[in-house]
Amino acid sequence: MFDVLVIGVGAAGYTAAIYAARYKLKTLIVGAEEGGMGITAADVGNWPGEIEIRGPDLMEKFKKHATSFEEVTHKIGRVEMLEKMADGHFKATMQNGDIYEARTIILATGSNKRHLGIPGEKEFSGKGVTYCATCDAFFYKNKTVAVLGGGDSAVEGAAIAAQVAAKVYLVHRRDTFRAEPYWVEKVKSKENVVFVLERNVLEVLGEQKVAGIKLDKAFEGSDILAVDGVFIEIGSNPSVDLAVQLGCRIDEKGFMDVDKSMRSSTPGVFGAGDVTNGSNYFAQFTTAAGEGATAANGVFNYLQGDQHHGWMQGAC
Amino acid sequence: MFDVLVIGVGAAGYTAAIYAARYKLKTLIVGAEEGGMGITAADVGNWPGEIEIRGPDLMEKFKKHATSFEEVTHKIGRVEMLEKMADGHFKATMQNGDIYEARTIILATGSNKRHLGIPGEKEFSGKGVTYCATCDAFFYKNKTVAVLGGGDSAVEGAAIAAQVAAKVYLVHRRDTFRAEPYWVEKVKSKENVVFVLERNVLEVLGEQKVAGIKLDKAFEGSDILAVDGVFIEIGSNPSVDLAVQLGCRIDEKGFMDVDKSMRSSTPGVFGAGDVTNGSNYFAQFTTAAGEGATAANGVFNYLQGDQHHGWMQGAC
Repeated sequence: MFDVLVIGVGAAGYTAAIYAARYKLKTLIVGAEEGGMGITAADVGNWPGEIEIRGPDLMEKFKKHATSFEEVTHKIGRVEMLEKMADGHFKATMQNGDIYEARTIILATGSNKRHLGIPGEKEFSGKGVTYCATCDAFFYKNKTVAVLGGGDSAVEGAAIAAQVAAKVYLVHRRDTFRAEPYWVEKVKSKENVVFVLERNVLEVLGEQKVAGIKLDKAFEGSDILAVDGVFIEIGSNPSVDLAVQLGCRIDEKGFMDVDKSMRSSTPGVFGAGDVTNGSNYFAQFTTAAGEGATAANGVFNYLQGDQHHGWMQGAC
Repeated sequence: MFDVLVIGVGAAGYTAAIYAARYKLKTLIVGAEEGGMGITAADVGNWPGEIEIRGPDLMEKFKKHATSFEEVTHKIGRVEMLEKMADGHFKATMQNGDIYEARTIILATGSNKRHLGIPGEKEFSGKGVTYCATCDAFFYKNKTVAVLGGGDSAVEGAAIAAQVAAKVYLVHRRDTFRAEPYWVEKVKSKENVVFVLERNVLEVLGEQKVAGIKLDKAFEGSDILAVDGVFIEIGSNPSVDLAVQLGCRIDEKGFMDVDKSMRSSTPGVFGAGDVTNGSNYFAQFTTAAGEGATAANGVFNYLQGDQHHGWMQGAC
């Protein structure tokens, strides 16, 4: 029986494990893939204290830290099923049939950025194709980039890219946006943003790295736009399957609903990182780490008796 | 005119500046002392990726990172007065009379741990006297420590210390606790916690480092308790003076009230770190960094037009 089972081995999960270990909680951390979203980041410039570091290297440091504690057991594997037992404990059934029991759960299962599934997208991922303008725009100073999408994240992404890049194409398959109209107007007023509407992107082109995108209809005389980077901002799918199994409330955007102490609506179940609606949906290494620490603190309090007395403050 | 004025040079402020710079916002960061609460930490073991680092070294890394951007201007100095002008901009008057103007404000002014003001306290600060059980208990494996105080943080501190230390004295000047009664009972049931009630601590004793504390009345035959560490957990005073000047709502515990996007109740003013009630009052490097990043993202959105349209989601 573990004190806490942390599911997810990204920035949120590893930080939760570090804090749980320091509270001397018997901790199991499991995840299907090592490093979470973080290992897909070619260059990270926004982890405080590291002016530049590769995503996989940063996640390796997190992992080394978390596994430096004797309190932490680390397993790679996929959790198939989570159940809350009659006595309030939790039972996790792994894909390989192994079973683990724990008194509390921290779900740090992350999210998956939606992909377009077009030729060149996977091939140039990390070589000009990226899924987070906030994370990566900075690397495109005075370059030309395309932002693909029509929702909030695409339009915000175009605004962020426009701060840095020389020229930004905002490419959207429709002629209207799901994003807030005022925000769309704001982006339209930027001199270095060009709206490319009613166009689908068929392919990402390039040799060693991105050189352009191919459209299904010509724009200003050509069906190829020359760009140095492609920001695909068509949303993300938070991995809430396990949260749903445990009856945790999911918010209207599809994310696990948490309060300021990272408690879910199911007692004993906490969330951290991109799967949750914490930090105003701002999915970053820093916010994931902060939420992982807060969730571990919540678990510690819960195990001391919070379940009976509503000990914690600050719930929304 | 700066896009954003960040006040406070701790983990929250520096991270906010890093993010603001990456959004290409013209950023001024000012603070009265370098490094915030972080530089008082002798050993830090809970900044993910750094198994052990000194607080001043960690804060130096944050500062180097923040000041590596040409968008960031860094000044040491105390802000005396903040005003919101008729056009919605902010004016900061420094102690030396300098005046700065900015379109938005991030208050990362931190908090001050309450001190007892007894002999030996200052002398042994960082040499056995500490103000954060969550941060430092881990360094007292199998040792004897005293936790001083009677509120939530003292009783939680004793519970945390009891997970790690061989023996914990919980020393309180009264015979009843302000902390949640259930929690007090829980701590009482721990075999390695000894309650020392109706005793004041007169002095911290030691040579190179803490060796004991002196009580005003003998306990079990002696007015000296031999301890290796003293955790003073008598609360903290968040530095909300500037927040009050700007009319920001202060919560019932005295902290700056923020929503999930770190907005205060005053448009254009954001908060981050220990001064706020973010992250369930859990004051850590990780939570401060996450909140600093989120606040900078909030500022970016605000400057794009959020002030008119309630763009952001997730407010409590």
